[in-house]
Amino acid sequence: MNPDLAFAVWSGERAARVAAVMDQRLPGIDVPPRALHAAMRYAALGAGKRVRALLAYAAGELAGADPVDVDGAAAAVELVHAYSLVHDDLPCMDDDVLRRGKPTVHIAFGEATALLAGDALQSLAFEILGSPAHGAGDTTAAKSALLAVAVGSRGMAGGQALDLEAVGSQCGPADVERMHELKTGALIRASVRLGAACGATWSSAEYDALDRYASAIGLAFQVVDDVLDVEGTAQTLGKTAGKDAAQQKPTYVSLLGIDGARARVDELRATAHAELARFDARARRLREIADWIALRTN
Amino acid sequence: MNPDLAFAVWSGERAARVAAVMDQRLPGIDVPPRALHAAMRYAALGAGKRVRALLAYAAGELAGADPVDVDGAAAAVELVHAYSLVHDDLPCMDDDVLRRGKPTVHIAFGEATALLAGDALQSLAFEILGSPAHGAGDTTAAKSALLAVAVGSRGMAGGQALDLEAVGSQCGPADVERMHELKTGALIRASVRLGAACGATWSSAEYDALDRYASAIGLAFQVVDDVLDVEGTAQTLGKTAGKDAAQQKPTYVSLLGIDGARARVDELRATAHAELARFDARARRLREIADWIALRTN
Repeated sequence: MNPDLAFAVWSGERAARVAAVMDQRLPGIDVPPRALHAAMRYAALGAGKRVRALLAYAAGELAGADPVDVDGAAAAVELVHAYSLVHDDLPCMDDDVLRRGKPTVHIAFGEATALLAGDALQSLAFEILGSPAHGAGDTTAAKSALLAVAVGSRGMAGGQALDLEAVGSQCGPADVERMHELKTGALIRASVRLGAACGATWSSAEYDALDRYASAIGLAFQVVDDVLDVEGTAQTLGKTAGKDAAQQKPTYVSLLGIDGARARVDELRATAHAELARFDARARRLREIADWIALRTN
Repeated sequence: MNPDLAFAVWSGERAARVAAVMDQRLPGIDVPPRALHAAMRYAALGAGKRVRALLAYAAGELAGADPVDVDGAAAAVELVHAYSLVHDDLPCMDDDVLRRGKPTVHIAFGEATALLAGDALQSLAFEILGSPAHGAGDTTAAKSALLAVAVGSRGMAGGQALDLEAVGSQCGPADVERMHELKTGALIRASVRLGAACGATWSSAEYDALDRYASAIGLAFQVVDDVLDVEGTAQTLGKTAGKDAAQQKPTYVSLLGIDGARARVDELRATAHAELARFDARARRLREIADWIALRTN
């Protein structure tokens, strides 16, 4: 099998796997309150790249962990991501109507139910991470605390707050990078760390290298997003295109130009590979994910 | 010292204690993003009855736990409560402008920052509960999962969803009771269980009795709320009075009348005391809290 095809098979299998775990843990739509559970399932299941789950599984492979031991961490990071999208799309935030090619949750279920669905998806992530049924390696309490820091005010939620402050303001590349480090980078780094924590014990040098890998691809993911936001259409993106410019948000493209942004992606991809150089063939999936993120077109 | 005064001293001391723990764990307003951290502190600190923290400390006393071992659980339940109030007050929910005598968070900081502050307060609760610095007794992972279930879609967030569905609909007493069991009862029960889990090991009969105590006082708290909503003024309540009737929400007063609601409180208070009968003098604070909840006037 050629390498690209092998990666596509692996990532498709793992994406289906984490969706099955979430499907199993999300209450059914027949369980009251029905609208809330329907909204949670709508937000978490269905289409989605599952980048964060793939990173957890890939880091778990590097750590020699069985996928079953990574399922809890993979589902938790995807549930947190789903919650963040629901809240980010709300009228008081980005006020977006289209996500992954479907109406956003508040359009489909109303604003109050969308708010509660996001809230409850966050709780479910911690419920799964704290459950003895999932997870091995590092203690589940340490994993919980790690995820909580990554998604709180000094992580993802903090990045969203910086994003709010950035609208219409004069930000330089360093400000934009700091915002993205928190808004998307913190959860991506947590995904790698949680997956890696499901197996082998790491030296701090190894942990740091993995963390720098995760930072590099997290940032690359965001720069590619900015490029695609300019070049893409709603049809290929599955979400409203060109909205950053419309909202006067500073982006990598507005700061560096398209060519500059692409050069930055190449640089970050090279950094990601360099950080993995110390690891053996078990880092294969992490390497492939770095390439996939840098070269993706949607 | 007369018993009422002794309880007032104890509860005042514990309320100050949990506020100090939260103050220490909430990032300072000089830490970016500053508006987010200011909003989180505004929501969590300052006035507040701290019922949930008092329950955790009181259950901890019954369990023979040192207060320092209960601090994490007490802070976590108060942070979750604070987050729920911030989101509950948002325009898409109850759209309230006054809380604890102050402008609500979205009035003071804007809607987007209020949304993120609630989100990040939930994360911080799990961060504290997962931290090795706080807590003893039961494993922190089990505590995390217990709290997550209590606040998620089959707990507090689920109760808020049922509350939304109830507006303007024909609900009987059983529906209203079910809604309150989730909306306020689930977190109150978790507060007692988390506190009790910080010390002694309990038989399942003892755990069940504590849980029935918690259910009774949780419901009593809500019935008293409904009575005060009719009888009180914004000045004594520190929040908008009469809003349930204005929103056509079914309440205990609308279902049972004022006298019927008061009789229900007496019944629930008696149940709470009966459930504690098996415990010795170390259940003193739990008994006092039951009386305080039943007799409170704000």
